[in-house]
Amino acid sequence: MKLSDVKKTLIVGTGLLGGSVGLALKQRSMGGQIIGVGRRQETLDKAIAVGAIDTGTTDLLDAAQDADLILLATPVETLIQQMKSLADLDLSQKVITDVGSTKRSIVQLASEIDTLRHRFVGSHPMAGSSAHGPDAAHADLFEGKMVIVTPTDHVDKDARQLVIELWETIGLRVMEMDAQNHDGVVARISHLPHAVAVLLVQLVMGTDALSAASTGFRDTTRVASGDPMIWADIFLDNQEQVLSAMAEFKQLLNQLMDMIRSGERDKMIELLKEVQRVRQAWGAGKS
Amino acid sequence: MKLSDVKKTLIVGTGLLGGSVGLALKQRSMGGQIIGVGRRQETLDKAIAVGAIDTGTTDLLDAAQDADLILLATPVETLIQQMKSLADLDLSQKVITDVGSTKRSIVQLASEIDTLRHRFVGSHPMAGSSAHGPDAAHADLFEGKMVIVTPTDHVDKDARQLVIELWETIGLRVMEMDAQNHDGVVARISHLPHAVAVLLVQLVMGTDALSAASTGFRDTTRVASGDPMIWADIFLDNQEQVLSAMAEFKQLLNQLMDMIRSGERDKMIELLKEVQRVRQAWGAGKS
Repeated sequence: MKLSDVKKTLIVGTGLLGGSVGLALKQRSMGGQIIGVGRRQETLDKAIAVGAIDTGTTDLLDAAQDADLILLATPVETLIQQMKSLADLDLSQKVITDVGSTKRSIVQLASEIDTLRHRFVGSHPMAGSSAHGPDAAHADLFEGKMVIVTPTDHVDKDARQLVIELWETIGLRVMEMDAQNHDGVVARISHLPHAVAVLLVQLVMGTDALSAASTGFRDTTRVASGDPMIWADIFLDNQEQVLSAMAEFKQLLNQLMDMIRSGERDKMIELLKEVQRVRQAWGAGKS
Repeated sequence: MKLSDVKKTLIVGTGLLGGSVGLALKQRSMGGQIIGVGRRQETLDKAIAVGAIDTGTTDLLDAAQDADLILLATPVETLIQQMKSLADLDLSQKVITDVGSTKRSIVQLASEIDTLRHRFVGSHPMAGSSAHGPDAAHADLFEGKMVIVTPTDHVDKDARQLVIELWETIGLRVMEMDAQNHDGVVARISHLPHAVAVLLVQLVMGTDALSAASTGFRDTTRVASGDPMIWADIFLDNQEQVLSAMAEFKQLLNQLMDMIRSGERDKMIELLKEVQRVRQAWGAGKS
């Protein structure tokens, strides 16, 4: 199945990510009819109003009956429930993917369910912001961003290819890796930075230091405005990798503290230079 | 002395900060003649070309003879040498300030020098970026930013007032505190965030995780592109406060690790909510 053969796409959860996928597909006239699935009619109406979906329903199983492509764009706890519900359907001709920030537990669950094992392909588009809801959705949210796709060996070739085609069509660059590796990577480039930003704010909250803070503090702590429930669930769902990234971080912090304590200026400059070089080389490739 | 009485302003170091002060003063026709002092004629020529200074010289002491206002905008090690050189002049009718990121050691030095004790007022404008040099200077760099001014009890009233007037004239909001308190504040809102950004990059450098990193990582680590020598000197000059901020940070990190390890979701959500609230309330007051 190619994306141009898809007659009906289900977008489950029409917030920032789901809504933006809908907008991007409709802008390209791809994915056939775009059906939004949500718990609240109000959110679905908003998603229709901004042009992210064609129609909306609160009945996932009914809408899934004749869908070709199902994108689960709900928080991880909801998503797991929805995967279990979908398991009762005949999924052999459908392709299911998601946008969850952690992958091991979701992919593991899909592997354990007969109907999902060959048709579910985990995805994690590395896009988003502290904004949320269909109002925040926009068609070019994904332009130039990365998506990590985590197919297992069980996954049918056509399912894997359709998911890759989906993301590439709406502007993302695809990296494939296994779910375990994915969770280790995002613990280090996303979950740890998030935790660190939270702690930097925690450290000064309630003091008058905050009123003097400037652009450096602003940038470094921007992600700390993220949704508390989503982030608590991410930390818990990716517990093992997050804790191990934090332990590594603490070790590096101890090393730097030693350098400062013992006045090792040259060693510190060497480290700062290497970090500056790496950060600038990486930054040059990013917007 | 009021700023409108100043006939000659010396800007020592015509990089991003010094150059921007020059541009901002000249835009407002304040500060009289603006003389740049630098080590390299090339930099001075650039500063003249971008309109940051009227003329330039490499001879600090000669230029300082008949200056009314002297702004030291050089790295902290150079600045200390320059303060010691200036000490031989009659400074009783002059006002001297600086833009150094740490204040205790500089203010301490000024207090120990007879000629400087009453006429030096430490300043730290909370502005800047990873860009540097006169080319990066712009007249509105300081617009709406904070400056911390750290006068001691020895400082003459007119000197303190002129320095405050200088910063307010070019768009900054002034906070006054003692140098020790300043160094504690900036350790927490600037030096620690900088160190943390460096460590986040260090953690992933040489791995393929970096190629998947996105906007969250970009914002959180942006300051890690800062000048290695300047930052090594800041960490060492503010050693005591930086180490104590790092120790506090490590304690908060340990607490969060405990919450994650023991699955304390509610406690974590409570923390994340409080941090989100504080960060958003602060962010609303910042550009």
